[in-house]
Amino acid sequence: MEFRALWDEIAAIGKEPTGYLRYAWTEPELALRTWFRAQAGQRDLAVEEDGNGNLFAWWNPSAEPGVLTGSHFDSVPHGGAYDGPLGIVSALLAVDELRARGVRPARPVGVAVFAEEEGSRFGLACLGSRLLTGAVAPEAAAALRDRDGVTLAEAAGGVPKGHRPDLLARISSFVELHIEQGRALTVPVGVASAIWPHGRWRIDFAGEGNHAGTTLMSDRHDPMLTFAYTVLAANKEARLRGAHATIGRVSVEPNATNAIPARVSAWLDARAADASVVDDLVAAVTARASERATRDGTRVQLTPESLSGETAFDVALRDRIAERLGGVPVLATGAGHDAGVLSAHVPTAMLFVRNPSGVSHSPAETASDDDCIEGVRALADVLEDLAC
Amino acid sequence: MEFRALWDEIAAIGKEPTGYLRYAWTEPELALRTWFRAQAGQRDLAVEEDGNGNLFAWWNPSAEPGVLTGSHFDSVPHGGAYDGPLGIVSALLAVDELRARGVRPARPVGVAVFAEEEGSRFGLACLGSRLLTGAVAPEAAAALRDRDGVTLAEAAGGVPKGHRPDLLARISSFVELHIEQGRALTVPVGVASAIWPHGRWRIDFAGEGNHAGTTLMSDRHDPMLTFAYTVLAANKEARLRGAHATIGRVSVEPNATNAIPARVSAWLDARAADASVVDDLVAAVTARASERATRDGTRVQLTPESLSGETAFDVALRDRIAERLGGVPVLATGAGHDAGVLSAHVPTAMLFVRNPSGVSHSPAETASDDDCIEGVRALADVLEDLAC
Repeated sequence: MEFRALWDEIAAIGKEPTGYLRYAWTEPELALRTWFRAQAGQRDLAVEEDGNGNLFAWWNPSAEPGVLTGSHFDSVPHGGAYDGPLGIVSALLAVDELRARGVRPARPVGVAVFAEEEGSRFGLACLGSRLLTGAVAPEAAAALRDRDGVTLAEAAGGVPKGHRPDLLARISSFVELHIEQGRALTVPVGVASAIWPHGRWRIDFAGEGNHAGTTLMSDRHDPMLTFAYTVLAANKEARLRGAHATIGRVSVEPNATNAIPARVSAWLDARAADASVVDDLVAAVTARASERATRDGTRVQLTPESLSGETAFDVALRDRIAERLGGVPVLATGAGHDAGVLSAHVPTAMLFVRNPSGVSHSPAETASDDDCIEGVRALADVLEDLAC
Repeated sequence: MEFRALWDEIAAIGKEPTGYLRYAWTEPELALRTWFRAQAGQRDLAVEEDGNGNLFAWWNPSAEPGVLTGSHFDSVPHGGAYDGPLGIVSALLAVDELRARGVRPARPVGVAVFAEEEGSRFGLACLGSRLLTGAVAPEAAAALRDRDGVTLAEAAGGVPKGHRPDLLARISSFVELHIEQGRALTVPVGVASAIWPHGRWRIDFAGEGNHAGTTLMSDRHDPMLTFAYTVLAANKEARLRGAHATIGRVSVEPNATNAIPARVSAWLDARAADASVVDDLVAAVTARASERATRDGTRVQLTPESLSGETAFDVALRDRIAERLGGVPVLATGAGHDAGVLSAHVPTAMLFVRNPSGVSHSPAETASDDDCIEGVRALADVLEDLAC
């Protein structure tokens, strides 16, 4: 199987010294879509766009529901090569593998490319699959702005079509192959059980901007202190609960060396195996931030930006896949995926490919070619099982 | 005296809803320079540029050394109206006041506009006065870059001329009027004793970028934690020493909600009445940051960006001014000024105008018109005393 040859065709697209920059509807991501359409054409797959930025390339399209696989091209800022694209390249290679095996599927097999999975450009993760499934209103999505003030409607060339029940009705099941994002997998391939509940909160810390040199320490209302305390509190409260809390994005005003900030905004990412633990964690972080704000003479406000309950993948499909693949491990993940969004509408499963570094959302993310080839074979096995 | 009329002429230049944006060599600051040249022309003051971006408008220029006053137009990001421009507007009005009094100075009186005092664009405070006095090499200054990557040479239209001993020899004394930047002044006008020693350090925290959802808390090397701990430690160590420490500028990579940062950079501004206290403070912050980095599995590095020892203004000049003004208060300041740079070369003094809010480097900075008018009268008194 020519994994490396196909993989290398896209390896340079959007690659910067600091990692991949493949934001949705930017030049690198559009180049990847163009490449995908060409690959689909070479394989006689019929490509359709759903009006939400998602692409579907069908082998033997028909009125009968088909088995869909695929993932996304877009990256986090300075991300890795595998998160997303591995699922699309593996899907194309799985089609090749099935043909090489002489398989003639009884139902359509489709390869999907979902738009803005990471939410890195417009702030809402799984935007393409949320639009497709009606989980977000097209008008609301159209008005989202990136950091440069560009709206999604401007970037995507119009207001999205939104909910496409007609298209969902043509999907009998969805299987997304994805690189594992921790170190939980010690064999080449595993299958997902569930996605942890998770949410994103914006935390605004407001104080009094002032001169760094002349303002007495006792006169300060420095929101950076409240922010810093909250970072440490979120970490501690998450560890106490076996949950995950991260503050990885910060914005400071005026962000000058010689000025006490007037405002610090930060984003809290919180996840746990159980939704009540996430709620409890966020309540504890809020309480501790508020206490510290009183001490600092600052103000703090939490605003939820996105919330997702637990996603349990289809149990029958998961067991069928695990059995078909000879008893591969079944594992939960803390990461969101388009598969999580689709799972509320069609029987959905995920395959994971081993990530020896356990690093994700970073250029240090890695997978061996051998494991990726194992992933393609496993995906081909699953598609053959489901489509024949 | 028409303080308000002249003040209102520049009030709108560079004013944004969030405060003033008057960075050196940007459109608003250049508009202020154009306005200054026109004002100098109306007063028959001869304007010269020193090849470093500094302007000098001389009343009765001659070979004899003259009394110089003035300040700067550039602002911090989202700064106030008074920090800098008050000293220039007051200087122009003091010339008017002397003429209204019928004063015929025996030596030249000059009004100066210094470039990039805040260091908000190219990172080095008092850049214009440092170039003029040879405190920074013109080639080094020319290569400084702003946040967009533009070099100072590109912004200023060439490599600065640097040290101008010929021009310094023509200054018998320098008096800068400036808004007070704390709440230390309870009468309209005061005179400066000294500027606290201060420095700026860049602190780089390096960890391992990773996925916020899938990375176990125990597997993380999160530089945001080390940074947050350092913010709180710097505040505590400064308070223990009666010093000032501020971390007001932060940069995060990749700065994404769902990514543990790979790197956080922060800038520490540290000041105290005594240089040994600043050294001790920074040593303590470094030690505590390093301890925490060991715990977090991250790396931390401090790099000094600028260091200034204590600046004691000319004692004879200070006493002469305080006496001339009828015994105004004498006070030290934690803020750097072009007057501090010039004081190593010519007898230098500063007048402060009361700031009721005590707020500085913020649009909340304020001074009453009555106090500003008192400031102009005091400056005129001092110039009359020194130039006649």
